[in-house]
Amino acid sequence: MAHLYDRVALIGLGLIAGSMFHAIKRAGLAKEVVGYARSAETRDVAREIGLCDRVVDSAAQAVEGADLVMLCVPVGAMGAVAAEIAPSLQQGALVSDVGSTKAAVIEAVTPHLPEGVHFIPAHPLAGTEQSGPKSGFAELFDNRWCLLTPQEGTDPAMLLKYKSFWEGLGSKVDEMDAQHHDLVLAVTSHTPHLIAYTMVGVADDLGRVTDSEVVQYSAAGFRDFTRIAASDPTMWRDVFLANKDATLEILGRFTEELFALQRAIRTGDGDHLHDYFTRTRAIRRGIIEAGQDTDAPNFGRNAK
Amino acid sequence: MAHLYDRVALIGLGLIAGSMFHAIKRAGLAKEVVGYARSAETRDVAREIGLCDRVVDSAAQAVEGADLVMLCVPVGAMGAVAAEIAPSLQQGALVSDVGSTKAAVIEAVTPHLPEGVHFIPAHPLAGTEQSGPKSGFAELFDNRWCLLTPQEGTDPAMLLKYKSFWEGLGSKVDEMDAQHHDLVLAVTSHTPHLIAYTMVGVADDLGRVTDSEVVQYSAAGFRDFTRIAASDPTMWRDVFLANKDATLEILGRFTEELFALQRAIRTGDGDHLHDYFTRTRAIRRGIIEAGQDTDAPNFGRNAK
Repeated sequence: MAHLYDRVALIGLGLIAGSMFHAIKRAGLAKEVVGYARSAETRDVAREIGLCDRVVDSAAQAVEGADLVMLCVPVGAMGAVAAEIAPSLQQGALVSDVGSTKAAVIEAVTPHLPEGVHFIPAHPLAGTEQSGPKSGFAELFDNRWCLLTPQEGTDPAMLLKYKSFWEGLGSKVDEMDAQHHDLVLAVTSHTPHLIAYTMVGVADDLGRVTDSEVVQYSAAGFRDFTRIAASDPTMWRDVFLANKDATLEILGRFTEELFALQRAIRTGDGDHLHDYFTRTRAIRRGIIEAGQDTDAPNFGRNAK
Repeated sequence: MAHLYDRVALIGLGLIAGSMFHAIKRAGLAKEVVGYARSAETRDVAREIGLCDRVVDSAAQAVEGADLVMLCVPVGAMGAVAAEIAPSLQQGALVSDVGSTKAAVIEAVTPHLPEGVHFIPAHPLAGTEQSGPKSGFAELFDNRWCLLTPQEGTDPAMLLKYKSFWEGLGSKVDEMDAQHHDLVLAVTSHTPHLIAYTMVGVADDLGRVTDSEVVQYSAAGFRDFTRIAASDPTMWRDVFLANKDATLEILGRFTEELFALQRAIRTGDGDHLHDYFTRTRAIRRGIIEAGQDTDAPNFGRNAK
């Protein structure tokens, strides 16, 4: 593929930025990728393993001459980074981000950007429970959605080119309103993460009582929760603070339904439980049909 | 391996029984495996695909001449099946089960068993979200725990031989008290399943509003929940009814902790959230070290 951008700056060198670097190289999407991370240790690791063509020692330096600047830091750090790079941004450059919430990022970043610099927020729906500069891999975005939340007045040609970039990384791309994005993600990602964190916390309390039996005998359900709950704490703290309203709204619905099931258990209402579990089974089918997961049992973990 | 049993009877032909059949054959643990399922359709499928050496048309017929009888039916059906087979059980035979709760199964099965028949309850901590006669595979139990909950007075030689059987199926075997088993499993499996069911139900409600965006954009957290919530509804209804007290106890702790996190989100207490998420991350490490899961990102689903 012909280069889409001359110089891509990756600010933050974690799982997403690392995977972007490998996927950019796989597809030849940029002439040069320059990286920066706040921690000197992360920068050293990145240099050691050849993550980015150049790793520089300041965010301002990283964005100099870049026609695409990717903010790959926790949502709560976006505003400060935007302020830091603003004076060094090249005229006509595109700034984007990979944050899990969009309204709060737009609010934090937009005021800092100078005239003549474009901003198109993005959210790749991809990740693993691992983090840090060594966790990235080129296939992370393959066949996953990347949601763009362009604001009114976005340059159409700029948007089209940026969509091609994410397609080049392997993603399917869609656009939606930032507020709507935040509600959908509260359901499909943020609230499930909070619940998984909570359940693992409860088990941890009990684990001390039962001398690590909880860990030793962790069956499938709980193991999946621990994977979710092993995700990066800083990133997730920021997600919940930034998407507070939608998360609290969905949590309210969740506890309402949980209490109904709890009452069915207490009163021995087997029909209620069976009906509910039958209904939820169907949504899994929809996800497999939408191509967002494999139907191999246990994610293909045990099957031949 | 030398045959441990002459004839194994599998009552119920779902995921667990099917996997037992394949694993028995892989290791040569029995001369003959006889199967029975209540549904004629399931029996037909089993005959078509060669699941069991013989498939017979009644549970009583299946247990005739069997020295090991495995009850592989939902927990709520154990008592009725035990009553049905009791007159046909061979003297000296061992009856066991694979139910996810143990105290309720012991209570339901024991009264029906004649003198001279042994009973050692078992619970293999293995499964996928799939069910039915075609879902089994020989590797399901490999390196997974099987918990035995023998009662006082269990014949030691009988127990030793039965442990060897599960080891031959690929499992690691441990023993514990039935009540304690039920509490540990309420934490590691039953409550997580209920929570996953609930979250998927909430999303399903919202999914209708947002025209299947919830399914289309289901990110990692929610996808894992749908896998859990796709498990067999009858099996899980019975689990919650049979393990009511422990599940309600753990649910109480869960909502207490969830409300504390919810309050932290509402009040913007980022430190509370970060501390909590850091603590839960550590338990994941324990599970990987205990050999109960892979540390490949995303269960190795995306990684090279």
